Amino acid sequence: MTGSLDALAGVGADPRRGGYSRHGFDRADLELREWFTEQATRRGLDVHTDRNGNLWAWWGAPGPDAVVTGSHLDSVPGGGAFDGPLGVVSALEAVDLMRANGFTPGRPFAVVVFAEEEGGRFGVPCLGSRLLAGTIDPDAARRLTDPDGVTLAEAVAAAGLDPARLGRDEQALGRLGRFVELHVEQGKGLVDLAAPVGVASSILAHGRWRFRFTGEGNHAGATPIGDRRDPMLPAAALVGAARRAARAVDGARATVGRLVPNPGGSNVIASTVDVWLDARAADTPRARAVVDEITALATTAAADEGCEVTVTEESYGDTVYFDPALRDRLAGALGGVPALPTGAGHDAGILAGAVPTAMLFVRNPTGVSHAPAEHAEPRDCAAGVTALATVLTDLTA
Amino acid sequence: MTGSLDALAGVGADPRRGGYSRHGFDRADLELREWFTEQATRRGLDVHTDRNGNLWAWWGAPGPDAVVTGSHLDSVPGGGAFDGPLGVVSALEAVDLMRANGFTPGRPFAVVVFAEEEGGRFGVPCLGSRLLAGTIDPDAARRLTDPDGVTLAEAVAAAGLDPARLGRDEQALGRLGRFVELHVEQGKGLVDLAAPVGVASSILAHGRWRFRFTGEGNHAGATPIGDRRDPMLPAAALVGAARRAARAVDGARATVGRLVPNPGGSNVIASTVDVWLDARAADTPRARAVVDEITALATTAAADEGCEVTVTEESYGDTVYFDPALRDRLAGALGGVPALPTGAGHDAGILAGAVPTAMLFVRNPTGVSHAPAEHAEPRDCAAGVTALATVLTDLTA
Repeated sequence: MTGSLDALAGVGADPRRGGYSRHGFDRADLELREWFTEQATRRGLDVHTDRNGNLWAWWGAPGPDAVVTGSHLDSVPGGGAFDGPLGVVSALEAVDLMRANGFTPGRPFAVVVFAEEEGGRFGVPCLGSRLLAGTIDPDAARRLTDPDGVTLAEAVAAAGLDPARLGRDEQALGRLGRFVELHVEQGKGLVDLAAPVGVASSILAHGRWRFRFTGEGNHAGATPIGDRRDPMLPAAALVGAARRAARAVDGARATVGRLVPNPGGSNVIASTVDVWLDARAADTPRARAVVDEITALATTAAADEGCEVTVTEESYGDTVYFDPALRDRLAGALGGVPALPTGAGHDAGILAGAVPTAMLFVRNPTGVSHAPAEHAEPRDCAAGVTALATVLTDLTA
Repeated sequence: MTGSLDALAGVGADPRRGGYSRHGFDRADLELREWFTEQATRRGLDVHTDRNGNLWAWWGAPGPDAVVTGSHLDSVPGGGAFDGPLGVVSALEAVDLMRANGFTPGRPFAVVVFAEEEGGRFGVPCLGSRLLAGTIDPDAARRLTDPDGVTLAEAVAAAGLDPARLGRDEQALGRLGRFVELHVEQGKGLVDLAAPVGVASSILAHGRWRFRFTGEGNHAGATPIGDRRDPMLPAAALVGAARRAARAVDGARATVGRLVPNPGGSNVIASTVDVWLDARAADTPRARAVVDEITALATTAAADEGCEVTVTEESYGDTVYFDPALRDRLAGALGGVPALPTGAGHDAGILAGAVPTAMLFVRNPTGVSHAPAEHAEPRDCAAGVTALATVLTDLTA
C-alpha cells in the first residue's frame, strides 16, 4: 500500500512550503494523471477522460447503474501525501484484491479521479465533480482564474480538452449508480473510537468567501498615521472577528489561511488586501450566521479606516447527509464499523446530490491534514484497501 | 523631462499589481541599467560599474573631492514612475543644461545609479549604498535571499559581478566629496508650502523587522476551533498593535505591507505566517519604543494561541540630519527654497554618514508614493532639473 503512495513521492514536492503542491492541470497534476492512466491500463481497465477533465477507468464495459469508487490526486498548497491519492491508490489495490479473490463484478464498475478537488488553483473546491453534476455554471467556471491570471478555459484547453464542453455531463451521470470514496480521516474521530476504518455520516455546511478591502496605496515611511486608509487594518480585524464568530456557534469553524496584500512590499501601505474566509457549521442557518457576523464586523472595520470592502461567495455547499441505507450497508458489510461526521468537503459530498453515495475513512493518528504531517499507518491503509474491496464486492456482486 | 521618463514607461510594468516592479538585478532592472549606460555614454560620460553593482558615469576624469548626483532605478513592487528614476533622469538632463550653458565642471563630477535601493528583492533597503559605505556586513549581504531563494551572491554573479568583492569600497568613497540626490517628494510638504522644489532637512529613524509566527498547519474544516494553533491570529494582532503603538508616539509610523501565510491555501490553517514590520520615528528611542511595544503585544498574542514567534531585525538606520552647511548653500543658490524633513529612506541617508550630503525634493501633488498614482507635474520636474543644474554648477565651479 504505502509502496504505491511512495511511487508518487517525487511528484509535486514543494521545497518552499514542505509537502506537496499539486493543482488542477499543472505539471505535477498532469504527471499524476499519466501515472494513473498507466496504472489502470496495466490492470486492463479502459481509461478515458470526460468532458470536465475527470478520469474514468472501467473494469469491463461502461454502463448504467455502475458502482464507482475513487477520489482525487491534486493537493492543497503544501499538502500531505494522503488526502486524495490514498483513495485512488486504494481503489487500484482493491481491484487487485478483488481479482486475486477470483471476483469479477456483476455490474458496471469504474475507478474515477476527479479534477481540482481542493480548489488550490482556481479557488472552487470539487471543481471536477461540480461541473460533472452541473452544480456550477460552466460560463462562470470557464472564467475562473489562477493566481497567474490563467483561466480555467485556457488551462483545460492546454490539457487537450475543449473548454466549450465543460458542464453537466448527462452521459457520466446516467451511468452512475452508487459512488464510494475512501479518504484519510481529517480529524481524530477514529483514534478516539480505536477503529482503523469507519464510514461517513455527514459533511458540515461550508463555503469560501473572498473579501477585498480597498484603501489607498502609499509610502510606509512618508505617510502620517492620520492620513492613512490602510486595508491591512480591516483585513486583520476580519481574522479576529472570524475566530470570535466561530467560537460563538457550537461546532462552527472559520479560517483565514490565505491573505494577499497588493502590492505586498514591506515599505508600502497596501492598496488592496484580499482575504479568503473558509467557514463551516452544522447547517446552513448556523453557517450563514457566522459569515453574516464576520461580514458585518469587517464592513465596520473597513469603514473605520476609510476603506471599501466587497464580498464574493466563491463556493457554498449545504450540509450533506450521506445515504443512510448505503451507509448502513457498508458498515454492516464491514462488521459494524462506526459512522462519523466530518468537517472536510469531498467530491462524494457533491455526488451525494445525484446518486446514493458513501465514504470510508482511514484512521489518521494525529488528525492533521492539509499539511505535510498528515499520515496514516501502513496497517490502517491496508485495512482500508481490504474494507474497500469488501464493500465493492458486495455492491457489484 | 517627462519625455525621458516616458522612455522607461514600458520597462518592468506590472500588469497584476499596476505600476512598476523593478528589483535589483532582475530583467527590468538590467534593462534600465543598460538604458542608463547608453544615455550616459551618448553624453560622453564614462560609465563603470563598481564592485557593489552601482553605476558611475563620470564627466571628465574620476578624482577626489568629486561632486556626485544621482538616485536609483529600482522600485517597490507595483511602484510609481518617479521614485528613483526622476533623480537619475534629472541628473542626465542637468548635465545637458549645464553643457547648453557652456559650463564645464572645475572638479570631478559623476552621475551615480545605486543598486537595489528599495530592498524589494533582497529585503534590505539602500543595499548598494550600504555595501559601498560598509554599513552592512558583506557576508550577511551575500546570504540575503529573494522570494525565489536566489542569494544576493548568485544574483550579482549572474549580472557579471564578483560576489567576493562586495563590501566597503575605499576607492569610490575616497573620490566622493559631496553627494546631492534629487527625488520626488513622498508627502505633501511642498504642496502646503506652494513650492515646486525644496531641500531635505532630515530623515526619520527607521527599520524593518520580520516576525515569524509558527503554529500548526491543519485542515480548515476538520479542525475544531479549540484544537487550533493558528499563527494567523497573532499575525493579525500584530497589525492592530502596530497601529496603536504608532498612534501613541507623535510622528511615528508603523506599517505592515507584507504578510505571507505558509502554505497560503484558503482551506488550510497556516503553519507559519511571516509579517514584515516597517517602523519609523523622529529618533531612535522613540522608534525602539514603538517596536518594543509591538513586539511585546505580538509575543503575548502568539502565546495566547500556543504559537511561537521569532523576530529578526532586517535593517535599521538612526535619524539622519543632512549637513546643515550644504543644505543652506543649496537653499541659498535656489533663492531660499524651503527645507523639510521626510519619513522616507534614501541612499543619500546612507552616504550622509560618510560625506556632506544633500537632497532636493520635487513637489508631489497628491503626496502618494510607492504606488502607481505617484506623480509630479512636468513643470515641477523641469524646475527640479533647473534647480539641480544650478546647484551642481555652484558646487563644481
